[in-house]
Amino acid sequence: MTDRYFEDFSVGETFMSAGLTFTEAGIVEFARQWDPQPFHIDAEFSRSWNYGGLIASGLHTMCASLRLWLDLGVFRACNIGAPGLGETRFPRPVRPGDTLRVRTEIVSLRPSSSRPDRGLARIRQVTLNQREEIVMEQETTVFLKRRTPDPKTL
Amino acid sequence: MTDRYFEDFSVGETFMSAGLTFTEAGIVEFARQWDPQPFHIDAEFSRSWNYGGLIASGLHTMCASLRLWLDLGVFRACNIGAPGLGETRFPRPVRPGDTLRVRTEIVSLRPSSSRPDRGLARIRQVTLNQREEIVMEQETTVFLKRRTPDPKTL
Repeated sequence: MTDRYFEDFSVGETFMSAGLTFTEAGIVEFARQWDPQPFHIDAEFSRSWNYGGLIASGLHTMCASLRLWLDLGVFRACNIGAPGLGETRFPRPVRPGDTLRVRTEIVSLRPSSSRPDRGLARIRQVTLNQREEIVMEQETTVFLKRRTPDPKTL
Repeated sequence: MTDRYFEDFSVGETFMSAGLTFTEAGIVEFARQWDPQPFHIDAEFSRSWNYGGLIASGLHTMCASLRLWLDLGVFRACNIGAPGLGETRFPRPVRPGDTLRVRTEIVSLRPSSSRPDRGLARIRQVTLNQREEIVMEQETTVFLKRRTPDPKTL
Protein backbone atom coordinates (compact mmCIF):
# COMPACT_ATOMS: atom_id res chain seq x y z
CA MET A 1 0.00 0.00 0.00
CA THR A 2 1.22 3.49 -0.86
CA ASP A 3 1.52 5.94 2.03
CA ARG A 4 -1.15 8.60 1.80
CA TYR A 5 -1.21 12.08 3.31
CA PHE A 6 -3.84 14.77 3.88
CA GLU A 7 -3.65 16.04 0.28
CA ASP A 8 -4.21 12.53 -1.09
CA PHE A 9 -7.79 12.10 0.22
CA SER A 10 -11.08 13.25 -1.29
CA VAL A 11 -14.45 13.92 0.29
CA GLY A 12 -16.78 10.99 -0.33
CA GLU A 13 -14.05 8.33 -0.50
CA THR A 14 -15.09 5.18 1.37
CA PHE A 15 -13.10 2.26 2.74
CA MET A 16 -14.50 -1.13 3.80
CA SER A 17 -12.71 -3.22 6.40
CA ALA A 18 -12.33 -6.97 6.71
CA GLY A 19 -14.68 -8.82 9.07
CA LEU A 20 -14.32 -9.85 12.72
CA THR A 21 -16.58 -12.42 14.35
CA PHE A 22 -17.61 -11.95 17.98
CA THR A 23 -17.71 -15.11 20.09
CA GLU A 24 -19.50 -15.60 23.41
CA ALA A 25 -16.12 -16.21 25.07
CA GLY A 26 -14.67 -13.02 23.58
CA ILE A 27 -17.70 -10.93 24.62
CA VAL A 28 -17.52 -12.25 28.18
CA GLU A 29 -13.72 -11.85 28.42
CA PHE A 30 -13.82 -8.21 27.29
CA ALA A 31 -16.74 -7.37 29.56
CA ARG A 32 -15.27 -9.07 32.64
CA GLN A 33 -12.32 -6.71 32.36
CA TRP A 34 -14.01 -3.43 31.42
CA ASP A 35 -17.81 -3.60 31.51
CA PRO A 36 -18.89 -6.36 33.94
CA GLN A 37 -22.65 -5.82 33.73
CA PRO A 38 -24.88 -8.93 33.80
CA PHE A 39 -26.17 -8.52 30.23
CA HIS A 40 -22.54 -8.67 28.95
CA ILE A 41 -21.13 -11.47 31.12
CA ASP A 42 -23.97 -13.71 32.31
CA ALA A 43 -25.50 -15.79 29.50
CA GLU A 44 -28.06 -17.36 31.85
CA PHE A 45 -29.34 -14.01 33.16
CA SER A 46 -29.30 -12.55 29.66
CA ARG A 47 -31.81 -15.07 28.31
CA SER A 48 -34.45 -13.70 30.69
CA TRP A 49 -33.38 -10.09 30.04
CA ASN A 50 -35.32 -7.83 27.67
CA TYR A 51 -32.45 -7.84 25.16
CA GLY A 52 -33.01 -11.59 24.65
CA GLY A 53 -29.53 -12.98 25.23
CA LEU A 54 -25.94 -11.94 25.80
CA ILE A 55 -24.92 -8.69 24.08
CA ALA A 56 -21.44 -7.25 23.61
CA SER A 57 -20.31 -4.16 25.50
CA GLY A 58 -20.57 -1.05 23.35
CA LEU A 59 -16.91 -0.40 24.13
CA HIS A 60 -16.06 -3.85 22.76
CA THR A 61 -17.77 -2.91 19.49
CA MET A 62 -15.87 0.40 19.49
CA CYS A 63 -12.54 -1.35 20.11
CA ALA A 64 -13.16 -3.95 17.39
CA SER A 65 -14.27 -1.24 14.96
CA LEU A 66 -11.13 0.76 15.57
CA ARG A 67 -8.94 -2.28 15.06
CA LEU A 68 -10.70 -3.24 11.80
CA TRP A 69 -10.26 0.33 10.54
CA LEU A 70 -6.58 0.54 11.54
CA ASP A 71 -5.85 -2.79 9.86
CA LEU A 72 -6.76 -1.19 6.52
CA GLY A 73 -3.75 1.11 6.99
CA VAL A 74 -5.44 4.05 5.24
CA PHE A 75 -4.10 6.72 7.64
CA ARG A 76 -0.98 4.75 8.65
CA ALA A 77 1.55 7.28 7.42
CA CYS A 78 -0.35 10.45 8.26
CA ASN A 79 -2.39 9.95 11.44
CA ILE A 80 -1.39 12.43 14.14
CA GLY A 81 -4.27 11.61 16.46
CA ALA A 82 -7.73 12.78 17.40
CA PRO A 83 -8.72 15.29 20.09
CA GLY A 84 -11.73 13.17 20.91
CA LEU A 85 -14.48 10.96 19.56
CA GLY A 86 -17.77 12.14 18.19
CA GLU A 87 -21.08 10.97 19.58
CA THR A 88 -21.43 7.21 19.17
CA ARG A 89 -24.74 5.40 18.65
CA PHE A 90 -25.45 1.70 19.04
CA PRO A 91 -28.77 1.20 17.23
CA ARG A 92 -28.68 -2.62 17.48
CA PRO A 93 -26.98 -5.07 19.84
CA VAL A 94 -24.00 -7.24 18.84
CA ARG A 95 -24.43 -10.89 19.78
CA PRO A 96 -22.23 -14.01 19.76
CA GLY A 97 -21.69 -15.15 16.17
CA ASP A 98 -22.09 -11.69 14.63
CA THR A 99 -19.42 -10.69 12.12
CA LEU A 100 -18.69 -6.98 12.05
CA ARG A 101 -17.20 -4.83 9.32
CA VAL A 102 -16.54 -1.09 9.33
CA ARG A 103 -17.26 1.31 6.49
CA THR A 104 -15.40 4.61 6.74
CA GLU A 105 -16.28 7.67 4.69
CA ILE A 106 -14.37 10.93 4.40
CA VAL A 107 -17.03 13.54 5.17
CA SER A 108 -14.94 16.71 5.02
CA LEU A 109 -11.34 17.86 4.67
CA ARG A 110 -9.85 21.22 5.60
CA PRO A 111 -6.33 22.52 6.10
CA SER A 112 -5.42 23.52 9.65
CA SER A 113 -5.75 27.28 10.07
CA SER A 114 -2.79 27.45 12.46
CA ARG A 115 -0.46 24.51 11.66
CA PRO A 116 0.95 24.28 8.11
CA ASP A 117 2.01 20.63 8.62
CA ARG A 118 -1.48 19.18 8.96
CA GLY A 119 -5.11 19.09 7.93
CA LEU A 120 -8.35 17.99 9.59
CA ALA A 121 -10.45 15.14 8.25
CA ARG A 122 -13.96 14.44 9.47
CA ILE A 123 -14.70 10.73 9.08
CA ARG A 124 -17.97 8.90 9.46
CA GLN A 125 -17.74 5.25 10.50
CA VAL A 126 -20.55 2.75 10.32
CA THR A 127 -20.13 -0.73 11.77
CA LEU A 128 -22.31 -3.36 10.08
CA ASN A 129 -23.19 -6.92 11.02
CA GLN A 130 -23.48 -9.86 8.60
CA ARG A 131 -27.05 -8.81 7.74
CA GLU A 132 -25.81 -5.32 6.75
CA GLU A 133 -27.58 -3.85 9.79
CA ILE A 134 -25.92 -0.91 11.52
CA VAL A 135 -24.67 -1.77 15.01
CA MET A 136 -22.58 1.38 15.56
CA GLU A 137 -22.31 4.84 14.03
CA GLN A 138 -19.76 7.52 14.79
CA GLU A 139 -18.27 10.70 13.36
CA THR A 140 -14.86 11.89 14.45
CA THR A 141 -12.31 14.52 13.47
CA VAL A 142 -8.70 13.42 13.02
CA PHE A 143 -5.51 15.37 12.34
CA LEU A 144 -3.59 14.18 9.27
CA LYS A 145 -0.04 15.08 8.27
CA ARG A 146 0.40 16.91 4.97
CA ARG A 147 2.79 15.70 2.34
CA THR A 148 4.04 19.27 1.91
CA PRO A 149 3.37 22.25 4.20
CA ASP A 150 0.40 24.44 3.34
CA PRO A 151 1.79 27.65 1.71
CA LYS A 152 -1.19 29.68 3.00
CA THR A 153 -0.30 29.17 6.67
CA LEU A 154 3.50 29.39 6.28
CA MET B 1 -24.87 -0.47 49.46
CA THR B 2 -28.61 0.09 49.10
CA ASP B 3 -30.04 -0.50 45.64
CA ARG B 4 -31.08 2.79 44.05
CA TYR B 5 -33.60 3.44 41.29
CA PHE B 6 -34.47 6.35 39.03
CA GLU B 7 -36.54 8.11 41.70
CA ASP B 8 -33.67 7.95 44.18
CA PHE B 9 -31.30 10.25 42.29
CA SER B 10 -31.08 14.04 42.30
CA VAL B 11 -29.64 16.47 39.79
CA GLY B 12 -26.23 17.67 40.94
CA GLU B 13 -25.31 14.50 42.87
CA THR B 14 -21.69 13.51 42.27
CA PHE B 15 -19.83 10.24 42.78
CA MET B 16 -16.05 9.81 42.90
CA SER B 17 -14.46 6.48 41.94
CA ALA B 18 -11.40 4.74 43.30
CA GLY B 19 -8.11 5.10 41.38
CA LEU B 20 -6.51 2.94 38.71
CA THR B 21 -2.83 3.26 37.76
CA PHE B 22 -1.81 2.81 34.13
CA THR B 23 1.44 0.90 33.55
CA GLU B 24 3.56 0.87 30.40
CA ALA B 25 2.89 -2.87 30.06
CA GLY B 26 -0.87 -2.36 30.42
CA ILE B 27 -0.91 0.50 27.89
CA VAL B 28 1.02 -1.57 25.35
CA GLU B 29 -1.06 -4.73 25.95
CA PHE B 30 -4.37 -2.90 25.42
CA ALA B 31 -3.10 -1.08 22.34
CA ARG B 32 -1.59 -4.18 20.71
CA GLN B 33 -5.04 -5.72 20.74
CA TRP B 34 -7.25 -2.75 19.80
CA ASP B 35 -5.26 0.34 18.81
CA PRO B 36 -1.82 -0.71 17.55
CA GLN B 37 -0.54 2.73 16.55
CA PRO B 38 3.15 3.49 17.18
CA PHE B 39 2.51 6.19 19.82
CA HIS B 40 0.60 3.60 21.92
CA ILE B 41 2.82 0.54 21.53
CA ASP B 42 6.37 1.66 20.68
CA ALA B 43 8.11 3.38 23.62
CA GLU B 44 11.26 4.01 21.55
CA PHE B 45 9.39 5.73 18.71
CA SER B 46 7.24 7.65 21.18
CA ARG B 47 10.19 9.43 22.76
CA SER B 48 10.91 11.16 19.44
CA TRP B 49 7.22 11.80 18.80
CA ASN B 50 5.62 15.17 19.46
CA TYR B 51 3.62 13.77 22.39
CA GLY B 52 6.93 13.15 24.22
CA GLY B 53 6.59 9.49 25.18
CA LEU B 54 4.15 6.61 25.14
CA ILE B 55 0.49 7.59 25.60
CA ALA B 56 -2.51 5.37 26.30
CA SER B 57 -5.15 4.71 23.67
CA GLY B 58 -8.19 6.92 24.21
CA LEU B 59 -10.28 3.75 24.19
CA HIS B 60 -8.14 2.38 27.02
CA THR B 61 -8.95 5.49 29.06
CA MET B 62 -12.63 5.06 28.19
CA CYS B 63 -12.59 1.39 29.22
CA ALA B 64 -10.80 2.11 32.51
CA SER B 65 -13.18 4.99 33.24
CA LEU B 66 -16.21 2.78 32.69
CA ARG B 67 -14.81 0.09 34.95
CA LEU B 68 -14.02 2.57 37.74
CA TRP B 69 -17.55 3.98 37.49
CA LEU B 70 -19.22 0.54 37.47
CA ASP B 71 -17.19 -0.56 40.50
CA LEU B 72 -18.97 2.14 42.52
CA GLY B 73 -22.21 0.22 41.94
CA VAL B 74 -24.33 3.39 41.82
CA PHE B 75 -26.58 2.21 38.96
CA ARG B 76 -26.17 -1.52 39.67
CA ALA B 77 -29.81 -2.24 40.37
CA CYS B 78 -31.36 0.13 37.86
CA ASN B 79 -29.14 0.35 34.76
CA ILE B 80 -31.02 -0.73 31.64
CA GLY B 81 -28.37 0.46 29.19
CA ALA B 82 -27.47 3.39 27.02
CA PRO B 83 -28.43 4.00 23.39
CA GLY B 84 -25.00 5.45 22.76
CA LEU B 85 -22.17 7.53 24.14
CA GLY B 86 -21.95 11.29 24.02
CA GLU B 87 -19.04 13.11 22.43
CA THR B 88 -15.82 12.27 24.24
CA ARG B 89 -12.85 14.63 24.60
CA PHE B 90 -9.30 13.75 25.59
CA PRO B 91 -7.77 17.12 26.56
CA ARG B 92 -4.52 15.60 27.92
CA PRO B 93 -2.67 12.34 27.29
CA VAL B 94 -2.52 9.48 29.81
CA ARG B 95 1.01 8.15 30.38
CA PRO B 96 2.58 5.23 32.24
CA GLY B 97 2.37 5.85 35.98
CA ASP B 98 -0.75 8.03 35.82
CA THR B 99 -3.51 7.17 38.28
CA LEU B 100 -7.01 7.90 37.01
CA ARG B 101 -10.24 8.51 38.91
CA VAL B 102 -13.68 9.27 37.51
CA ARG B 103 -16.08 11.88 38.83
CA THR B 104 -19.68 11.36 37.72
CA GLU B 105 -22.38 14.01 38.04
CA ILE B 106 -26.11 13.66 37.44
CA VAL B 107 -26.84 16.50 35.02
CA SER B 108 -30.53 15.90 34.38
CA LEU B 109 -33.30 13.42 35.10
CA ARG B 110 -36.58 12.96 33.31
CA PRO B 111 -39.23 10.24 33.23
CA SER B 112 -39.57 8.37 29.95
CA SER B 113 -42.47 9.78 27.95
CA SER B 114 -43.39 6.35 26.55
CA ARG B 115 -42.23 3.70 29.07
CA PRO B 116 -43.63 3.88 32.63
CA ASP B 117 -40.93 1.51 33.94
CA ARG B 118 -37.96 3.82 33.35
CA GLY B 119 -36.45 7.27 33.36
CA LEU B 120 -33.55 8.92 31.54
CA ALA B 121 -30.51 10.26 33.33
CA ARG B 122 -27.94 12.47 31.66
CA ILE B 123 -24.58 11.94 33.34
CA ARG B 124 -21.37 13.90 32.93
CA GLN B 125 -18.14 12.01 33.57
CA VAL B 126 -14.75 13.58 34.05
CA THR B 127 -11.65 11.41 34.31
CA LEU B 128 -8.83 13.02 36.31
CA ASN B 129 -5.18 12.12 36.73
CA GLN B 130 -3.20 12.32 39.98
CA ARG B 131 -2.61 16.05 39.39
CA GLU B 132 -6.38 16.64 39.16
CA GLU B 133 -6.00 17.39 35.44
CA ILE B 134 -8.81 16.32 33.14
CA VAL B 135 -7.80 13.53 30.75
CA MET B 136 -11.29 12.65 29.52
CA GLU B 137 -14.74 14.27 29.48
CA GLN B 138 -17.99 12.74 28.36
CA GLU B 139 -21.75 13.18 28.70
CA THR B 140 -24.09 10.28 28.13
CA THR B 141 -27.76 9.46 28.55
CA VAL B 142 -28.68 6.22 30.32
CA PHE B 143 -31.99 4.50 30.95
CA LEU B 144 -32.69 3.73 34.60
CA LYS B 145 -35.39 1.46 36.02
CA ARG B 146 -37.99 3.08 38.25
CA ARG B 147 -38.77 1.72 41.68
CA THR B 148 -42.49 2.10 40.89
CA PRO B 149 -44.07 2.74 37.49
CA ASP B 150 -44.72 6.36 36.57
CA PRO B 151 -48.49 7.00 37.03
CA LYS B 152 -48.44 9.69 34.32
CA THR B 153 -47.51 7.22 31.57
CA LEU B 154 -49.59 4.29 32.77
